[in-house]
Amino acid sequence: MNKTYASIITIGDELLIGQVVDTNSSWIAQELNKIGIGVKHRVAVGDNWDDIWEALDEETKKASIILITGGLGPTADDITKPLLCKYFNGKMIVDQPTLDHVTHIFNHILKRTMIERNAKQAEVPDTCTVLKNERGTAPGMLFERAGKIFVAMPGVPHEMKWIMSNHVLPLLLKRFNTGFIAHKTLLTAGIGESFLAELIKDFEEALPSEVKLAYLPNYGMVRLRLTSWGMDQNNLNNILDNHFNLLKNNVKDYLVIDEDLPMEAAVGKLLKANNQTVATAESCTGGYIAHLLSVHPGSSSFFTGTVVSYANIIKERMLGVPHEMLMTVGAVSEETVIQMAKSVREIMQTDYAIAVSGIMGPDGATEEKPVGLVWVAVANKNQVITKSFHFRFDRRRNIELTATNALNMLRGVIVDNS
Amino acid sequence: MNKTYASIITIGDELLIGQVVDTNSSWIAQELNKIGIGVKHRVAVGDNWDDIWEALDEETKKASIILITGGLGPTADDITKPLLCKYFNGKMIVDQPTLDHVTHIFNHILKRTMIERNAKQAEVPDTCTVLKNERGTAPGMLFERAGKIFVAMPGVPHEMKWIMSNHVLPLLLKRFNTGFIAHKTLLTAGIGESFLAELIKDFEEALPSEVKLAYLPNYGMVRLRLTSWGMDQNNLNNILDNHFNLLKNNVKDYLVIDEDLPMEAAVGKLLKANNQTVATAESCTGGYIAHLLSVHPGSSSFFTGTVVSYANIIKERMLGVPHEMLMTVGAVSEETVIQMAKSVREIMQTDYAIAVSGIMGPDGATEEKPVGLVWVAVANKNQVITKSFHFRFDRRRNIELTATNALNMLRGVIVDNS
Repeated sequence: MNKTYASIITIGDELLIGQVVDTNSSWIAQELNKIGIGVKHRVAVGDNWDDIWEALDEETKKASIILITGGLGPTADDITKPLLCKYFNGKMIVDQPTLDHVTHIFNHILKRTMIERNAKQAEVPDTCTVLKNERGTAPGMLFERAGKIFVAMPGVPHEMKWIMSNHVLPLLLKRFNTGFIAHKTLLTAGIGESFLAELIKDFEEALPSEVKLAYLPNYGMVRLRLTSWGMDQNNLNNILDNHFNLLKNNVKDYLVIDEDLPMEAAVGKLLKANNQTVATAESCTGGYIAHLLSVHPGSSSFFTGTVVSYANIIKERMLGVPHEMLMTVGAVSEETVIQMAKSVREIMQTDYAIAVSGIMGPDGATEEKPVGLVWVAVANKNQVITKSFHFRFDRRRNIELTATNALNMLRGVIVDNS
Repeated sequence: MNKTYASIITIGDELLIGQVVDTNSSWIAQELNKIGIGVKHRVAVGDNWDDIWEALDEETKKASIILITGGLGPTADDITKPLLCKYFNGKMIVDQPTLDHVTHIFNHILKRTMIERNAKQAEVPDTCTVLKNERGTAPGMLFERAGKIFVAMPGVPHEMKWIMSNHVLPLLLKRFNTGFIAHKTLLTAGIGESFLAELIKDFEEALPSEVKLAYLPNYGMVRLRLTSWGMDQNNLNNILDNHFNLLKNNVKDYLVIDEDLPMEAAVGKLLKANNQTVATAESCTGGYIAHLLSVHPGSSSFFTGTVVSYANIIKERMLGVPHEMLMTVGAVSEETVIQMAKSVREIMQTDYAIAVSGIMGPDGATEEKPVGLVWVAVANKNQVITKSFHFRFDRRRNIELTATNALNMLRGVIVDNS
């Protein structure tokens, strides 16, 4: 049987002038994949009648399912709804359940007077099936033509996600007998993409045709993903598991975690499993490591807190870094991060502490200390290990790399002490 | 004359299964826009020969410039280079300057032995012009056919950006007499998209055809963007300035800043202008506000530091929140954030302090305190103002909204005291 494919059309000038990054498409693709539907094509077009029309025509040729996001807002630049009305030969009518829902939102949640523009959100083409949007005022709309499914959804991510999860995915699962796609991903650190490729060359060449390997390098780490597709889920999973185990064994010296988790989640999982805690003392990362450690649910069981000592005076006052030390070796030094790590671990009474100090750029470099120089310390009750890095990128990327590498150092210490 | 259009093709299975978010396209679109080149279409395709080939055929019909990113790595899943070689009727040759460059990187920067796989990065189709990649080993490649320009670049963002900035953009500027596009964007807060649309309805209806208005809602704020295009840059700027001033006047009660800056940069700019400083005490945001304040260059002039008191014991020990208070009104309370704000302002000796405490979900709710409840305090030497919010979203979004709203409260206090 043939695989079922979807196309994703995202609509909005902001996508074409680069004012926003499209995060909807990747989420939609992930969810479709889980139910065995492949994505053939992703297209972004502007708020332009002809371009949207043409995209609909073209994607209809490529896929059985066309998912459209954006352009459904209450303002004049949003033309998707009238266009779809015409494209599917409908006329606009008021959908009473949607009008009731919008009225309810204004009267009971927003507690504001509803204006005509809001009521207009309840108008839909009479050729569509309305998909209720519990997270907002613009409903989803489902059209069918010649056995193909078209769904239009608002571009606001949490509204789109609600409609996908509650209407679209269940409907597609029922409609298409899609077979199964399975992925398994692992995270490596400390080895570049080409050396990794060399290391697993034999493994890769021996892969059967139904298993695909992909390299996903990012911030000094490489994720490896195995993908397989088939109609027999058990068989599929067996094949994938066998090859995934082989792969894990091949990369064991560089393996961070055998799941598709970011570094900080891998570290969090280790800490949770060991019933241990961590605190951070951050200068150049300005709280970014703390943010990473706390952004995932359940982090309060292992993350205690942070001192962001952005100003030197705070390094002295809160973390006991001697004034003398800052005046001689300076804030970006091994001595300083050792002191920061020890102090914050003591103040926060945690098992581990991370401390970082560096020059993220573009300003702040001196002759001896260039932009990208970072010192990192990781402390537990017995020892403090330190390392310096020299990153050569822009500020945001230097902050990312510092955080990832500091977390990987912590991971090493946890593993060594487990 | 006709406007010059580009299409962007991004290549990689990871884009179609949603494993990575495509940030390259929006950056490329921004840069093209600055030099008067519009983006007509953005397409993502997988690492699949036929799909890439078809995308090249189709985008050639739509645009004069086709920019391609991804699929140029040293691993077996990267098929873009051999495909382009065939598409442009070339044969593979070794490009000596690229080989020298790759060798230099391995010998002098990475200090590792180069393997054959790396040397292969220097092989290019003989029908292309090589664009040196100073940030990595995979060079950019420029092809021309029937007056159209095709450029293939690596998908690694900082490598792609280097090649675009140093080769592609200067070349396009010289080649196409593109006219000018100008944008002006302002940021509003505290008013929903439809109410804003109602407020500026007359302004919007009176706009001349060459000026376009767009609404960009995000995290409780709405950006408004005016765009104009034309061959006479002075005239274009005059028209845009006039309408932008009218727009600013229309939304003055909700205006955050009349630039395309995020909230934290608007706040940073105000602080810098006033020569004032801020510190934060964060519980539920886990350092995210500190990260926002410190991620932009030059933040050390106004951002002093943060205490992330994720655990209650840290609220007591470092921020002097009485144990009694935590036991009675609790950590998520007006009393607690007032104490946190006062303490951190005193410890950090800053002009202002922000403190936040809330329940970000999915865990942690109680009967009286649901997920999404947040208390925020902003302190200066004379006063502490407080506000509670009830967000109804997922953890990440609740953290974002808390940060944005807290920064907007600070902005209000700074403006009122200036």
